[in-house]
Amino acid sequence: MSRPAPRLVEVGPRDGLQSLPGVVPLEAKVAFVDALSLSGLSEIEAGAFVSPKAVPQMADSEKVFAQITRKPGVIYSALVPNEKGLERALAAKIGKAAVFTAASEPFNQTHIHATIAESIERVRPVVAKVKTVGLPLRAYISTAFWCPFDGQIAPKKVVEVARRLQGLGINELSIGDTIGKASPDEVRRLLDELLKSVPVEQIFLHFHDTYGKAVANALAAWSEFGVYGFDASTGGVGGCPYAPGASGNVAMEDLVSAFESAGGRTGVDAAKLKAAAALLVPHAGPRLGKISA
Amino acid sequence: MSRPAPRLVEVGPRDGLQSLPGVVPLEAKVAFVDALSLSGLSEIEAGAFVSPKAVPQMADSEKVFAQITRKPGVIYSALVPNEKGLERALAAKIGKAAVFTAASEPFNQTHIHATIAESIERVRPVVAKVKTVGLPLRAYISTAFWCPFDGQIAPKKVVEVARRLQGLGINELSIGDTIGKASPDEVRRLLDELLKSVPVEQIFLHFHDTYGKAVANALAAWSEFGVYGFDASTGGVGGCPYAPGASGNVAMEDLVSAFESAGGRTGVDAAKLKAAAALLVPHAGPRLGKISA
Repeated sequence: MSRPAPRLVEVGPRDGLQSLPGVVPLEAKVAFVDALSLSGLSEIEAGAFVSPKAVPQMADSEKVFAQITRKPGVIYSALVPNEKGLERALAAKIGKAAVFTAASEPFNQTHIHATIAESIERVRPVVAKVKTVGLPLRAYISTAFWCPFDGQIAPKKVVEVARRLQGLGINELSIGDTIGKASPDEVRRLLDELLKSVPVEQIFLHFHDTYGKAVANALAAWSEFGVYGFDASTGGVGGCPYAPGASGNVAMEDLVSAFESAGGRTGVDAAKLKAAAALLVPHAGPRLGKISA
Repeated sequence: MSRPAPRLVEVGPRDGLQSLPGVVPLEAKVAFVDALSLSGLSEIEAGAFVSPKAVPQMADSEKVFAQITRKPGVIYSALVPNEKGLERALAAKIGKAAVFTAASEPFNQTHIHATIAESIERVRPVVAKVKTVGLPLRAYISTAFWCPFDGQIAPKKVVEVARRLQGLGINELSIGDTIGKASPDEVRRLLDELLKSVPVEQIFLHFHDTYGKAVANALAAWSEFGVYGFDASTGGVGGCPYAPGASGNVAMEDLVSAFESAGGRTGVDAAKLKAAAALLVPHAGPRLGKISA
């Protein structure tokens, strides 16, 4: 299996920061994104245009997008749940929109208050509108391996959701191990099925490192299946607030280190990632998943 | 490659606790070891008979050995640097002795104040004495992949040290990635060489999770080379004191989870490991590498 250059998507400023118990000040968010822009990363999810009541951590996403220094060539994306959010996001000049659903019914119903089918119907008008303005579209599929309510998720369930999203015209899928429980063998089983329906260039894997398996999962997907899209969060920011020290999103610097030492050229400067992570320490404190030594 | 049942060695009460900046009280150590004894682990390194001045965290190892409730079938081992330490260790009724050296000259000189050759000569009388009392012997080889002073370590250097230790009659080698920097490819390169000289049953791999690669390394060694001995530390205790949140020893519960989900029967109850780790939280606090959610 060839080992293509990894495409790494930074999700710390959105998925990471929204998992923290407190709200990180606007200026720290802007400084974090600006530091990330200097690292060689080509895509940064910089905010979410969701209800400020539901996710207070993302209430200032307009201001983040207005105040960051955009580096040419870097895509600044945002999570967009519905048409109202999309209007705000387009006004903020996002470079890519991301919608979301999950592969587990109870997870969808708990977090999105909709069935999977309803959540996909909700994104249909968002997708249609994004297409008219010519922006690329990503869709998150959460709980693609394990659900905290429903246990292990069958690969065919994920494939079914993936195909429905493809039918809407989504350009890429981010397949999430939301609770960090997936093992390399489970990743292999899903990719065996998923790659029959979804082209490899449309697949991003979104691992959490709660049980320390994220790097093993990413290396298995990359070296054995040629999957080369991966999400990660600089500093591992976004650990579970109920388990001090537990990791959330896999740390971007860990993926960079793992790929580089396996011959994958990421184009990302790990020292600059560390500098970016250091900016968060006063705000994320001991909940910062990891600062590599 | 067959996937033999993993043999897991708990090093938290020694390698983990000695890396903490403060000293954990005796009763907490005893409670930690006793909780670990209930988890199904078959070997626990419970202390070190080193100079209390050099390693104050281990000054009460005699008392730990005196106060723990020994579970039949569990080996309670200890680190022993020299003949004086061995006398104390034998009086404390250890079940296995462990000596140590490193594969890097500058690391040896900084931490053991001896050349590699001198450090091996120092353990010779310890080994001879241990043999006369019929206890099994382990030797640690630190910095077997990367040295903080000397960079990458050539596999042939590790093999050379391993063969010298074998010549003394050591029963098992714990090959350490002291700074957590090894990648699966580097593990493969070392094992390609090492397995030509050392039988697989004498090899234990001792990974640190500083860069999130420990589980990937362990799974590669196990599934591709049939190595089945691994050290780990419950709770991931022993993170680098200079990098808050950074991991030290790979968490035992992460190895258990990774092996079990890959079909390796560890015989260890992860819930009981978590209960043991929870006992350390008041003492290790945010420096506890990880408490799995």
